[in-house]
Amino acid sequence: MKLLNKLATATVASVMIAGGLLGSVQTTYASGQKSTSEDAQKTSDVVYMGNTENPKNVIFLVGDGMGPSYNAAYRYFADNPETKEMEQTAFDKYHVGSQRTNPNDSKENVTDSAAGATAFSSGHKTYNGAIGVDADKNKVKTVLEQAKENGKSTGLVSTAEITDATPAAYASHVDSRDKKNEIAKQFYNDKINGEHKVDVLLGGGAAYFGKDNDNLKNKFKKDGYDVVTNKNEMQNSKSKQILGLFADNNMPLQIDAPDKNPTLVDMTDNAISKLKGNDKGFFLMVEGASIDKAGHPNDITGVMSEMEGFEKAFEYATNYAKHNPDTLVVATADHSTGGLSIAKGEDYVWNPDSIHKMKHSGKYMTEEIEKGKNVEKVINKGYGFAISKNQMDDIKEEAKKLKDFKKDKDKYEAQLQKVQDAVQKPINDKSHTGWTTTGHTGEDVNTYAYGPGSEKFKGNIDNIDNAKNIFDIFQSDVK
Amino acid sequence: MKLLNKLATATVASVMIAGGLLGSVQTTYASGQKSTSEDAQKTSDVVYMGNTENPKNVIFLVGDGMGPSYNAAYRYFADNPETKEMEQTAFDKYHVGSQRTNPNDSKENVTDSAAGATAFSSGHKTYNGAIGVDADKNKVKTVLEQAKENGKSTGLVSTAEITDATPAAYASHVDSRDKKNEIAKQFYNDKINGEHKVDVLLGGGAAYFGKDNDNLKNKFKKDGYDVVTNKNEMQNSKSKQILGLFADNNMPLQIDAPDKNPTLVDMTDNAISKLKGNDKGFFLMVEGASIDKAGHPNDITGVMSEMEGFEKAFEYATNYAKHNPDTLVVATADHSTGGLSIAKGEDYVWNPDSIHKMKHSGKYMTEEIEKGKNVEKVINKGYGFAISKNQMDDIKEEAKKLKDFKKDKDKYEAQLQKVQDAVQKPINDKSHTGWTTTGHTGEDVNTYAYGPGSEKFKGNIDNIDNAKNIFDIFQSDVK
Repeated sequence: MKLLNKLATATVASVMIAGGLLGSVQTTYASGQKSTSEDAQKTSDVVYMGNTENPKNVIFLVGDGMGPSYNAAYRYFADNPETKEMEQTAFDKYHVGSQRTNPNDSKENVTDSAAGATAFSSGHKTYNGAIGVDADKNKVKTVLEQAKENGKSTGLVSTAEITDATPAAYASHVDSRDKKNEIAKQFYNDKINGEHKVDVLLGGGAAYFGKDNDNLKNKFKKDGYDVVTNKNEMQNSKSKQILGLFADNNMPLQIDAPDKNPTLVDMTDNAISKLKGNDKGFFLMVEGASIDKAGHPNDITGVMSEMEGFEKAFEYATNYAKHNPDTLVVATADHSTGGLSIAKGEDYVWNPDSIHKMKHSGKYMTEEIEKGKNVEKVINKGYGFAISKNQMDDIKEEAKKLKDFKKDKDKYEAQLQKVQDAVQKPINDKSHTGWTTTGHTGEDVNTYAYGPGSEKFKGNIDNIDNAKNIFDIFQSDVK
Repeated sequence: MKLLNKLATATVASVMIAGGLLGSVQTTYASGQKSTSEDAQKTSDVVYMGNTENPKNVIFLVGDGMGPSYNAAYRYFADNPETKEMEQTAFDKYHVGSQRTNPNDSKENVTDSAAGATAFSSGHKTYNGAIGVDADKNKVKTVLEQAKENGKSTGLVSTAEITDATPAAYASHVDSRDKKNEIAKQFYNDKINGEHKVDVLLGGGAAYFGKDNDNLKNKFKKDGYDVVTNKNEMQNSKSKQILGLFADNNMPLQIDAPDKNPTLVDMTDNAISKLKGNDKGFFLMVEGASIDKAGHPNDITGVMSEMEGFEKAFEYATNYAKHNPDTLVVATADHSTGGLSIAKGEDYVWNPDSIHKMKHSGKYMTEEIEKGKNVEKVINKGYGFAISKNQMDDIKEEAKKLKDFKKDKDKYEAQLQKVQDAVQKPINDKSHTGWTTTGHTGEDVNTYAYGPGSEKFKGNIDNIDNAKNIFDIFQSDVK
């Protein structure tokens, strides 16, 4: 879409710059495709015409925190400014409805990711923090467990720690999302028909698989899993089972990540390549976790970078399904984060061009400053446009205060958010991005679906209906 | 839905209070029904099963400013706290997709209501402010004009001035939404096949139909229109053509309105009763305009009151369509307003109970204060709970400053918004409602549709597709 005022010049320039800046995402994707994606390499126009047969494979994608304003903002961001129309995203043509997200919690009526993921995985509304247990803390069966019982292959992929709430709720049962060592142990110890529950585990969270937690990494290796730590190792892995741990905790945002890291589409591609060999089919959950991780501290640059990564994973999955028509693809979100709005103030303008100019996320710049690096150097390296002296002084002032709170973790964290707010103010202002909170918000989220069974996801559904529909579909395996 | 913590007690109490407070809406509705709504009186379970035939009647409802967070917030607000489930709203089961809203404007990429309504009415993207003209200021044909050409009856209903952007864009063509006298003149002067374009005009805006503007009111009367100014007169009107002007400018919000005023569902009921006699069918546009009018100054009480009014109008229309299966009902929005978020701060809670307790909107209290009434009395009368001394002092302080700006209209308006912000702070804080702007935001909006032709509105569509679909449907009249 073309905007003909003074923004237009900026637009063209910024897209040219962005070609370089965000180009790494595309390059990585292209090479990821090359390695194993013969199925999905061509974006052909084979279109699923709708049938009611049950699919053999289900790929369920969760854009964590991806409320409806994220999807529309990303369309503005991804728009080609040289055309008159605003182009649709990969999601748009598979939009089938929306989902209600409220949890079953005695104190809170806006969900967290644990209650959201347990609703997705098991079909039970539960309390915030619950992982694979209902409101009375009873263990509830998940669609991944059902898939494994049915003899399918299974996978969990996330840009967060692989023990984080969303993947955890598919393959473990604990009363609190904070029990990450226990979650990792259950990934290893809980077996179905003598087999490990999850064949493919790709994400961050190495911290929960090492010496401090039963050497789980080595145990998985002994049982035949390839254990890998970078993209190259992942792509060279031959085993059908894999544990990929690409960061101690959450993986870095794609805009900031080193080349050795796989992107979300690289991991999705690898997961599918390993799971697809099973005649009985597979269940794969793919989480764009860092959309939420960037939304919490109101980091619009990080959000757009992660939305781009999630779109590529979704596009990859739908392309796979076009060539493998026994595959259902569903993408949705657990909740929205941050109260993101497209425009703020009185101008009726949102300016994604300024975000295209950014070279690093707010998170990255804040971490560099926290490490003690020179504020001006960090900002000048991370920003693609000059910020004002006042804005720079504000960042310095907030950064200076950090040392006063070294001894109080909570106050330190609060001050660190103030640093990040100051770091991000120039881009939030220039792009006209509004935020209301560093927490979650209760809007319905969008549902996108393609392939056999996608009809079940139409209209306004409840988040628990995702599990109910997938259980229904898996029921047909045993008929 | 039940929330078991300390909020629960407040909930029960507040709903009991709300029964009285917001009850006028229901009473009015009930009496509105009695008068003319034999078609829609029973909410039977006749359900439209889907066919592809073209409907004879189209009722198109616009929730102005009703972004997706408004729909979900209203579900929280309308929820029965005595049940475990969160009940669905009248909209939810007819949710079929979403709409893109961006305008074709050289300076702004977030739409206003004029460009939005022109997209709905004509199928042309245009610039902000444009009424029934395209981006080159060429007059474009509207679906209402097509309906009249086809011999159908036509109606426009709004809680705003009936010359406001949304209704205006269906029956007039001017280069700026501000030319309200000209819009009213076109309503009267522009004829199709020798007939006035619009048979039913109900809303505010008497200011543009009186002595200062060609005595249009009298001219309409001379041509056979009943000209009415209150609900009683409206319901006693016998003519098939009516001009109802219930306020000089915008109608008051329903929570604040006098009993003599018709509600949106009263007007919808009356419009349908007049239009339905035509064998060739009708086109009716119904606008919940004040959702947006309350969203702009971030007045959550006003927003919920107007959402309730709009839901009743939608429910009335779908009930009519259930008993008249040649009727298509579509409801959508032109954009979102204010960057409304469900929750703010760090608690994962949104508290609609506090809103149920309110006796007046922020708008009403601000206007009372502007008139010079005693601040404490106004607040104590408008609020259903005690606000703090600090909050009261802030309101007084902002109110006191008003007199300093009497001579500068812009500064006065800005200060008046500061008064309104202070008036609303206690309820926005207590309900945990977040806002980012007093303008519009660019999220996609929801589409709800029921009846023959509703299939055309599925998935993610563009706002111009509403007109394209309705033109398609009207095409069948002449086949």
